[in-house]
Amino acid sequence: MSLKSANEYSISSLLAGEVNVGQSVCVKGWVRTRRDSKAGISFLMVHDGSCFDPIQVVASKNLSNYEQDVLHLTAGCSIIVDGELVKSLGKGQAFEIQAKQIIVVGFVDDPDTYPISPKHHTVEYLREHAHLRPRTNIIGAVTRIQNCVAQAIHRFLDDNGFYWIHTPIITASDCEGAGELFRVSTLDLLNLPRKENTNAIDFSQDFFGRETFLTVSGQLEVEAYCLAMSKVYTFGPTFRAENSNTTKHLAEFWMIEPEIAFADLEDVAVLAENLLKYIFKTVLATYSDDMNFFVQHVDKEAINRLQKILDAPFVQMEYSDAIKTLEKVNDRFEFKVEWGSDLQTEHERYLTEVVTEGRPVIVQNYPKEIKAFYMRMNKDNKTVAGMDILVPGIGEIVGGSQREERLSELDKRLDALKIDKKNLWWYRDLRRYGSVPHAGFGIGFERLVGYVTGVANIRDIVPFPRVPNHAEF
Amino acid sequence: MSLKSANEYSISSLLAGEVNVGQSVCVKGWVRTRRDSKAGISFLMVHDGSCFDPIQVVASKNLSNYEQDVLHLTAGCSIIVDGELVKSLGKGQAFEIQAKQIIVVGFVDDPDTYPISPKHHTVEYLREHAHLRPRTNIIGAVTRIQNCVAQAIHRFLDDNGFYWIHTPIITASDCEGAGELFRVSTLDLLNLPRKENTNAIDFSQDFFGRETFLTVSGQLEVEAYCLAMSKVYTFGPTFRAENSNTTKHLAEFWMIEPEIAFADLEDVAVLAENLLKYIFKTVLATYSDDMNFFVQHVDKEAINRLQKILDAPFVQMEYSDAIKTLEKVNDRFEFKVEWGSDLQTEHERYLTEVVTEGRPVIVQNYPKEIKAFYMRMNKDNKTVAGMDILVPGIGEIVGGSQREERLSELDKRLDALKIDKKNLWWYRDLRRYGSVPHAGFGIGFERLVGYVTGVANIRDIVPFPRVPNHAEF
Repeated sequence: MSLKSANEYSISSLLAGEVNVGQSVCVKGWVRTRRDSKAGISFLMVHDGSCFDPIQVVASKNLSNYEQDVLHLTAGCSIIVDGELVKSLGKGQAFEIQAKQIIVVGFVDDPDTYPISPKHHTVEYLREHAHLRPRTNIIGAVTRIQNCVAQAIHRFLDDNGFYWIHTPIITASDCEGAGELFRVSTLDLLNLPRKENTNAIDFSQDFFGRETFLTVSGQLEVEAYCLAMSKVYTFGPTFRAENSNTTKHLAEFWMIEPEIAFADLEDVAVLAENLLKYIFKTVLATYSDDMNFFVQHVDKEAINRLQKILDAPFVQMEYSDAIKTLEKVNDRFEFKVEWGSDLQTEHERYLTEVVTEGRPVIVQNYPKEIKAFYMRMNKDNKTVAGMDILVPGIGEIVGGSQREERLSELDKRLDALKIDKKNLWWYRDLRRYGSVPHAGFGIGFERLVGYVTGVANIRDIVPFPRVPNHAEF
Repeated sequence: MSLKSANEYSISSLLAGEVNVGQSVCVKGWVRTRRDSKAGISFLMVHDGSCFDPIQVVASKNLSNYEQDVLHLTAGCSIIVDGELVKSLGKGQAFEIQAKQIIVVGFVDDPDTYPISPKHHTVEYLREHAHLRPRTNIIGAVTRIQNCVAQAIHRFLDDNGFYWIHTPIITASDCEGAGELFRVSTLDLLNLPRKENTNAIDFSQDFFGRETFLTVSGQLEVEAYCLAMSKVYTFGPTFRAENSNTTKHLAEFWMIEPEIAFADLEDVAVLAENLLKYIFKTVLATYSDDMNFFVQHVDKEAINRLQKILDAPFVQMEYSDAIKTLEKVNDRFEFKVEWGSDLQTEHERYLTEVVTEGRPVIVQNYPKEIKAFYMRMNKDNKTVAGMDILVPGIGEIVGGSQREERLSELDKRLDALKIDKKNLWWYRDLRRYGSVPHAGFGIGFERLVGYVTGVANIRDIVPFPRVPNHAEF
């Protein structure tokens, strides 16, 4: 069996009409379905991951291995097809392949028990078979869209002069206090070193000579690069050891965190709006087949929602004004709001779905009590320069802030929050040596892809989800 | 102080001549040096990270804050300059800025102790100040090049139909046996749960309900996506808990791992050669100033080396032939080789520096005993379809293989190596359901950037290196 062919094409290029009818072509992929006509012709739908649609391969009984191989093909078998690209007479696609040779590369052991049979499977069932689920319509489409979103993020930021910085995954500090942490260690659990005459663990004997954890955010470290390179971002995995079994939480997820020097809250709000619109525009322009699938089978608003966001500028709203608006309709909400409340998803959705009728809302200047230590104190001494971008359907999709660049103000906050300044010596240094106003935001990558596709459970976005009690594969 | 200016430009765009002489411009950045003339003119070199060179700002005593501010500017101070772009009369750069206004955004506390003074610092010293070192010439250049390399990798693979897959960082299996692992856990070390009537730790009570570690490679998981999407890759952090204090080892580093379906060893060797050449070409075309700095101050061969690789095809060589060649000159080597030996850096360098006179060498088909379980067994039953790409200066830069796609052969290897098949049930499944020949390789990102720049110690490539006893910042 030779793997090489001079006429090899991806199915996407054939269906896109990039090859002339009549030409010899070779495709390599997996059978999704087989249908046999009484006249001794088999119709195979073959996919290779390159686009949503499979291509139809027409195999006649004249093929030398028709009886022996073709009639035994089932969902999941891998084949190499040599044939002629022809116009399709049936409805649906414009092109199909008239097979001249079909080589079966791999059959399916016991097709009756193959987990990805052509019938409909629930997403819950597919999660149990995460190693095979990219072969399905839905997870294949998610995979193409998540790649499109990720590539769009890199291209947009690279084209705009941002540098991608690899901030550390293993860290010695829980600076954000953003939740429970995973410990990283090489200590022998059956023989833990103790500090002399105590029961306390002696982490000086651990791999890094101290207690270390998985990072919750690369922001603090990327600020150091921002204050030298001007425009930077992180795009990497972050971790939360929260025992949350919801459709929105993962223990391991990727975040994008741009950071700009000489910038204020407004600058990063503009950047976030432009970035989101660029992503949505790219997805709609590039993957309309996959998006149409989501509209038909997952969320009929999937395309409209993105289109609507593209059509109008985001609405800016002060937190205080948002609260006034929400207080008037407090009886709608499970959690009643007042000034000082953190906004829940129900409030966020009301603002962007009802108040602005589907336009995203940038809520700004939150009470300092509900935001992190690093956000810049406003003149009122009550609010900080933080912003969240809210979108219909899910609420917050972006969280950002102008950072506190004044050392005296930062120290006040650290003291008030009883955060140990010693660990943050280097972060404080950044405020001592040519400090500048700077600002940034974070986007959870999987939630963003969930938003784009309409797929409700984040466990169906990431290939092999990590959640409480699950670390299979 | 207003941060906004309609005439704001990056220093790179001004020095590249994208703005007309005579135009009003605004730049924002950090002072590298200040020199005062007797005539009451100060010359400031200002950088903003956008390119290697700082721009010269000419500030005369006519500025209202000349005495009060300008004459107190030191290295590291942040400023906003409004002025006119003029032709530079001095040698060096073509353009400079005649300042009309200089706003000092942030002074430097106690300039005498500012760690990044304009004098030369050793890389060892700079590592102690990793939060400030991107302000130096060398680390600024490394940061631009590493971004360029990373973006080139994404663009090349995206343009060639590959999907970026986020394989898990936290994993329950040490499938590769690639080294010691970091444990990830939320168990309370002072109160570890034990299995009933034993001293053994009860990991069923840990966050994931089992013992988990940081991944050493995303390859096995990305193979699952390859066998559905055809062309995929990982680009993410991987971990080794090896106690190696060398210039080449990090406990945390990023890897790129492309994987192609319906492909053999030759296909991925071609892909790797094309990818490397694309990266080198992009760097040379885009960052010649930074590369010239490396030539002048770090490694005078930095540009020649890349250029030479671009100029000729890589050389293919069988492992057995490589051994025959090396055996003839065994007296040159600290470690003598014979058939069955793993190649050391000294042997790899001899092959690519002496034997092929600087051309990269793709060594193929290694003895099975020195390669991982997943590499495809060759017909001789002695060697496996693995390949390493060797380059002058460092030796191995790429390691890849065709994967064993035949379940019976895979099981033979797992049994021979006493690897528990239970944990690999899903990996074995991939060989039961439409298995296809597939192949891939891995590139260590930081080593690649070290190779491109000539920077000898990998700790100067990654922003905040993680090595034994070091997890600062």
